[in-house]
Amino acid sequence: MTVLDIIEKKRDKKELEKEEIEFFVNGYTKGEITDYQASALVMAIYINGMTNEETTNLTLSMAHSGEILDLSKLGKTIVDKHSTGGVGDKVSLILLPLVASFGVPVAKMSGRGLGFTGGTVDKLESIPGYKTDIDINKFVQNVENIGISMISQTLNLAPADKKLYSLRDSIACVESIPLIASSIMSKKIASGADKIVLDVTVGSGAFMKDLKSAEKLAKEMIEIGKLAKRETVAVITNMDEPLGRSVGNSLEVKEAIEALRGNILEDVKHVVLALGSYMLKLSGVEEDLEIAKRMLEENLNNGKAYKKFLELVKNQGGDITYIEDIDNLEETKYIEPVYSEKTGYIYNINAKEIGKLACYLGAGRVTKEDKIDKSVGIELLKKVGDKVSKDEVIAYLHINKPEQLEIAKEKIKEIIKIRKEKQEKLKTIIKVIK
Amino acid sequence: MTVLDIIEKKRDKKELEKEEIEFFVNGYTKGEITDYQASALVMAIYINGMTNEETTNLTLSMAHSGEILDLSKLGKTIVDKHSTGGVGDKVSLILLPLVASFGVPVAKMSGRGLGFTGGTVDKLESIPGYKTDIDINKFVQNVENIGISMISQTLNLAPADKKLYSLRDSIACVESIPLIASSIMSKKIASGADKIVLDVTVGSGAFMKDLKSAEKLAKEMIEIGKLAKRETVAVITNMDEPLGRSVGNSLEVKEAIEALRGNILEDVKHVVLALGSYMLKLSGVEEDLEIAKRMLEENLNNGKAYKKFLELVKNQGGDITYIEDIDNLEETKYIEPVYSEKTGYIYNINAKEIGKLACYLGAGRVTKEDKIDKSVGIELLKKVGDKVSKDEVIAYLHINKPEQLEIAKEKIKEIIKIRKEKQEKLKTIIKVIK
Repeated sequence: MTVLDIIEKKRDKKELEKEEIEFFVNGYTKGEITDYQASALVMAIYINGMTNEETTNLTLSMAHSGEILDLSKLGKTIVDKHSTGGVGDKVSLILLPLVASFGVPVAKMSGRGLGFTGGTVDKLESIPGYKTDIDINKFVQNVENIGISMISQTLNLAPADKKLYSLRDSIACVESIPLIASSIMSKKIASGADKIVLDVTVGSGAFMKDLKSAEKLAKEMIEIGKLAKRETVAVITNMDEPLGRSVGNSLEVKEAIEALRGNILEDVKHVVLALGSYMLKLSGVEEDLEIAKRMLEENLNNGKAYKKFLELVKNQGGDITYIEDIDNLEETKYIEPVYSEKTGYIYNINAKEIGKLACYLGAGRVTKEDKIDKSVGIELLKKVGDKVSKDEVIAYLHINKPEQLEIAKEKIKEIIKIRKEKQEKLKTIIKVIK
Repeated sequence: MTVLDIIEKKRDKKELEKEEIEFFVNGYTKGEITDYQASALVMAIYINGMTNEETTNLTLSMAHSGEILDLSKLGKTIVDKHSTGGVGDKVSLILLPLVASFGVPVAKMSGRGLGFTGGTVDKLESIPGYKTDIDINKFVQNVENIGISMISQTLNLAPADKKLYSLRDSIACVESIPLIASSIMSKKIASGADKIVLDVTVGSGAFMKDLKSAEKLAKEMIEIGKLAKRETVAVITNMDEPLGRSVGNSLEVKEAIEALRGNILEDVKHVVLALGSYMLKLSGVEEDLEIAKRMLEENLNNGKAYKKFLELVKNQGGDITYIEDIDNLEETKYIEPVYSEKTGYIYNINAKEIGKLACYLGAGRVTKEDKIDKSVGIELLKKVGDKVSKDEVIAYLHINKPEQLEIAKEKIKEIIKIRKEKQEKLKTIIKVIK
């Protein structure tokens, strides 16, 4: 077997065998197969596609290309959660302490943000003292002790995926459903997941712009899950407007803390309860989804989820006085109100544009090396479908650079679109695929 | 414009603009575009194809990526000839002195052989003293003085093509009609051709295995010729059995000398006259193809073509005593007759297998660095369709390594297939496309 045979086969739209995919993934990880050969194969995959068997074999090969997190000593079913990314997505910060409050073990390694979507690790790091890069044994021990730990990706998980992703990025081959699906699933499997609950976002602020592609991606991942014996459920959620109220690291942490105290926005709640009910179901805590949702809501309201979050922060070295009084969290020099210029209904708040604006303010990275400003961001006081009156405050801009004030104000007025006609609220949970 | 836009466009089966193709070719030649990016684009081209306009723009960009041979001082229309390669193909050695004997200027840069097909330069170098690497000014001067010069590729012609070809070879993207067509045509244009006569071979010993692909390649090159304003004619010739009598460098030179003296095999003559008549026509020497063929045959018989060849060899520093008495040319230690084991008709002599056998004897290169043995090779005394009797000599093996004798004999008996049923001779000229 040579890499040329493998490239030729996929070039001619034939199905690759397990051994061929393993040969490629191992050879590429070790550097025995060159970037230009991988590049040819990736383009052939992009154009000619892959069967579910091929995608599963690619996923498993990539998962096994590096270290695998062993969580067997916890003696419990590990249900991992993953989102395909969005703007204002603080779901993990709320959902994971919440399910942990039911004894569901949470051993979560998250990424940093790149582009206009934020990363959970960046958000956690806006809590003074919170350490995201703890040793892997200590990480597992934390989960054993208090049932939850959330850190950055400290293990060398799925290095083949890392290498392939960066290659795809430089050859215009990112938007390939089988390659996206296998990339996500390989990391979940490498990080020890037995079962997986996916938040597949769709809309302007998501990777998948239309429902058809989102469904395709969801189905592909569920198929991989089946073949790889990792039961997977996908909740397709709306990312046309940003999720919740805030966009920006520190601001989102504040919103998450409020939510954990029971003060949670409708759209965020829908996502948290939808994903959470499946996590409780797959963990064996509660079979009935409606009962599970009520249980989750209860633990948001009775302080148990909040208490679990305090425990988590404390255990990771974070200073909980910042949680107990969120006004202590870092604030920007300027908090600028934005007033509506007319009376009417909001019919569009483009999530991607909001993400880009937050990026411009300093909340996100354009390249991996960029430093981010935790405190900057945007608070949206209204959602699509809300009525607004002229001169009413519709948003706050949290800004540190005075020269950005006017530009950002103009920009956000452009993004928040208002018209006379009534507008329905957006449906948050579009569908569940399993 | 970035290389990512270009890759994305071709990935999505869209047509690339002239400027985009130039941007890619220039960037890749300079090393500003990486191999892995070129690789992705090449695979996308392989799978999604290119329009004639795209192929022409690629051809012209590659032609202009390096030096261009300027033959304008000759003040004549330059008609170049190119073959897509074959086994026993000594046509250039006969055809070019022949057309030069009519005053058609021949300024020919040829390649060395790689794989099982021999190169004209290797064959010329089996004439003691013949220098193939002369200075480019001297080359043009030779054409001015005696109307012909045949050398190796000393100019840096179409370096983009060279780089792309070697990349294609390592990513299983050689067999792409638009890429083969633009590769050939770019080198012809860079070497100063105004008009082009192509010998597109088809069959077991050719690059194109079936008529359909050969026609497709021919048509593609003719279209490029039209759009690039280089009138092009393609003669599709049979390469199912080797051309002529001999395969091997020195042996083919001997056969060519015999042919130039009027002693030419039927199949070789057909190819020489077909290509030659178009060369005379495109050069403006003779419009009528049938008259041109008669003129060509005359100059083979009256010694004028032979005289031109002697002039060429002498002018390139070759020792013409080896031409005047071909028995002086280097011979192998063993010349082994092969006897037919039965009576019947030859129905197959697989050209590729003969080429591989010659390679095994030392006549060809597997890698560019391999040294070749000029004297070894195979003489085929019979062609497909010929009657043979048991114990009749059907071939001679010219061998230097005694350990090869038995293996080669077994092998050639396998290749020359004989059966009772009568068999038609193969048609040499399959069709002409213009």
